Amino acid sequence: MAQPLRLGIAGLGTVGGGVVMLLKEHAEHMARRIGRDVHVVAVSAQNRNKERAVALQGVHWHEDPIALATDDRIDVLVELMGGAEGTAKTAVERALQAGKHVVTANKALIAAHGVALAELAERQGVGLKFEAAVAGGIPVIKTLRESLLANRITRVYGILNGTCNFILTKMRSEKRAFADVLAEAQKLGYAEADPTFDIGGFDTAHKLAILASLAFSTRVAPEEIDIEGIESITSADIEAAEDLGYRIKLLGVAQATDSGIEQRVHPAMVPVQSAIAQVGGVTNCVAIDADYVGALTLVGPGAGQRATASSVVSDIADLAKGDVTPAFITPAGKLQKLKRAALRAHAGGYYIRLSVYDRHGAFAAIATSMAKQKVSLDSIVQKRAQAVREGEVASGKPTPVVLITHETTEAAIRAALDEISKSGHVDEKPQMIRIEKL
Amino acid sequence: MAQPLRLGIAGLGTVGGGVVMLLKEHAEHMARRIGRDVHVVAVSAQNRNKERAVALQGVHWHEDPIALATDDRIDVLVELMGGAEGTAKTAVERALQAGKHVVTANKALIAAHGVALAELAERQGVGLKFEAAVAGGIPVIKTLRESLLANRITRVYGILNGTCNFILTKMRSEKRAFADVLAEAQKLGYAEADPTFDIGGFDTAHKLAILASLAFSTRVAPEEIDIEGIESITSADIEAAEDLGYRIKLLGVAQATDSGIEQRVHPAMVPVQSAIAQVGGVTNCVAIDADYVGALTLVGPGAGQRATASSVVSDIADLAKGDVTPAFITPAGKLQKLKRAALRAHAGGYYIRLSVYDRHGAFAAIATSMAKQKVSLDSIVQKRAQAVREGEVASGKPTPVVLITHETTEAAIRAALDEISKSGHVDEKPQMIRIEKL
Repeated sequence: MAQPLRLGIAGLGTVGGGVVMLLKEHAEHMARRIGRDVHVVAVSAQNRNKERAVALQGVHWHEDPIALATDDRIDVLVELMGGAEGTAKTAVERALQAGKHVVTANKALIAAHGVALAELAERQGVGLKFEAAVAGGIPVIKTLRESLLANRITRVYGILNGTCNFILTKMRSEKRAFADVLAEAQKLGYAEADPTFDIGGFDTAHKLAILASLAFSTRVAPEEIDIEGIESITSADIEAAEDLGYRIKLLGVAQATDSGIEQRVHPAMVPVQSAIAQVGGVTNCVAIDADYVGALTLVGPGAGQRATASSVVSDIADLAKGDVTPAFITPAGKLQKLKRAALRAHAGGYYIRLSVYDRHGAFAAIATSMAKQKVSLDSIVQKRAQAVREGEVASGKPTPVVLITHETTEAAIRAALDEISKSGHVDEKPQMIRIEKL
Repeated sequence: MAQPLRLGIAGLGTVGGGVVMLLKEHAEHMARRIGRDVHVVAVSAQNRNKERAVALQGVHWHEDPIALATDDRIDVLVELMGGAEGTAKTAVERALQAGKHVVTANKALIAAHGVALAELAERQGVGLKFEAAVAGGIPVIKTLRESLLANRITRVYGILNGTCNFILTKMRSEKRAFADVLAEAQKLGYAEADPTFDIGGFDTAHKLAILASLAFSTRVAPEEIDIEGIESITSADIEAAEDLGYRIKLLGVAQATDSGIEQRVHPAMVPVQSAIAQVGGVTNCVAIDADYVGALTLVGPGAGQRATASSVVSDIADLAKGDVTPAFITPAGKLQKLKRAALRAHAGGYYIRLSVYDRHGAFAAIATSMAKQKVSLDSIVQKRAQAVREGEVASGKPTPVVLITHETTEAAIRAALDEISKSGHVDEKPQMIRIEKL
């Protein structure tokens, strides 16, 4: 049997603890399959005296993660501290410089510095792996890197943030308001005290940038993403979506178009009978459209101690078997700069919810604004207040009107909505949600 | 750049043609990612003079696949002829004996001889790969082999036969009878003239045996599978399922239980709101339950020229990168004999449809037979013929009664149904469909 693979684990929080537990619980099972042992020989964490679920006798303790990263005892640094800059970045750089492999679950680090780190790893002839950085337990990095290596990918998209999906799922199933469900998610620990990173779409964007790089052989470009969060989604939208045969999901979408690559994060309408619409709660999913395989969808846990540990350890196993292929499949030096497609050029259907003053000529004016931009309508739903019935005179009060458009462009729909907003016929900012074509 | 990888392709039918086309169309894209070229240097097929979509100038032609298998020009035999015995088996054996890697899409061969071939490959230090043998374009072999290497898997199951799923989907959506939809599937080329292999569940069984081996580190054991096909499913079952919140799918299920491993292929009820229920038409899906990752579901094309070629070429790419790890993850010599769990011991809920003579005491007798076996009922649906209304006297005519049981055992439900069949209260063989717990 080959020499054991020696790990140094930086960070013993939830994920680090799960990795240590998994390596211990399934040590024999893994060794039989890999053909060598995997040993945790050194660790570092913020608090040495914290009680931990897993015993660490005989494991060398470092106060300083940087010292761990360059420890001669280790072959692989497993970075589970998090953060795009600072200690995590330095530790990973030092480990690679010292000729050690790196496994990380750190999406922020890979989104910000992944290509530079991949270049360093390739120069040093070592592996850099990050399966756990995107969609937790779902093996989407390996699928893109290896299973679809020979395909031309046209779109990769999915539900990449469990917090948002939990909130949207509860708003629908329990008919509750956004703020109310957010508060519950915070109580359950699914959302942070400051939830902006999740609900604003930024977490999804980090993950999307990594997926787009793998899919399109482009340099990771998180700054080239159009991002909208779920804060503006109301119960009225969720109910109207349901009536029209859709569900609302926060999607990250990277798509090759004639004018470049769209990278966008936004709430989207998906058909209620699609597999992606059924993905509820904190579950994640990633779908890939590619020229040979067609459409592939992976559904699974997007976070959690054990699921994330499963992905981290699969990377460790690949390194144990000798896989040091480039982190982004294509060698880092050959990754192209991402050519961003303007969101204005995005083509698709749109859901529009307006609060229209119920008076003569209002709807005609709205329809005219749409027609001027060549936006044609697929369906129109106007739900009058219960007291106002057909045949009565117009009430003058704001009444919700929901429109579904045929395929048009973002530029056209924005121009139409601008004119409608200024027309005096609507009493709040129009709601606009893109319909994702599946 | 490393030496090109040289392929010999045996079989230029649908899949072989797709592989040649993909390798040609994406040659540069692949070479950039793998770091070496992949060349088709030799082929064999039944008819040299057949017109083909892809040009094969400069490629050596063999009349005899066995001669191709041992041709010094090739590093890898790509076996796409099919068949568990005969030429395909001999060609694969000869190639491995000659120190060549093998990629195959041949599920029958791997189900029957996979472990022996894996042993031979491991002795020879070469790779044996078969991603395309199960679920077409879905990368489930790699997911089990690599992504879930460190997990203990408790169940792997899925929709593994597109023909059956097409038939069941159409029966439901178009309210048509089995025989009628089967005839259409045959016309469309989705089903063979003799459809037994697909609709009888045997194709699913081959694939399931391979998945079970990978999941449980056991020797492939297709002869240890309990198999039922979809021939007995009627429109009445599909309609009743829908009323009760279920859909009927032909599942292959391999599950670790206290008494061994269940391997079963049968129509099953799955909740209508589950992801698997949404998998329609010829699409396949595979779901995995494992101790660390939790539940993972992969959905994609189960067949087709391009999707299958995608999987074959992913195996070729892995070999080009030097992956010669054991075919079933665990070295073939260490795979355990599968300990079969008796189907009688299977625990689960059941759907029962009876045709009960509408007369005094009939239902009481049925309920008593169930109670004697400690089978308790979750729901009972009795749809009387329209003319027969509550309060009228019993008609004496056969009336459909559908029962859903709470969890019980196969032995108990079979004993109860035996007694019911013999009671004289029912006029046809009771229908029994297992409910799969998701």
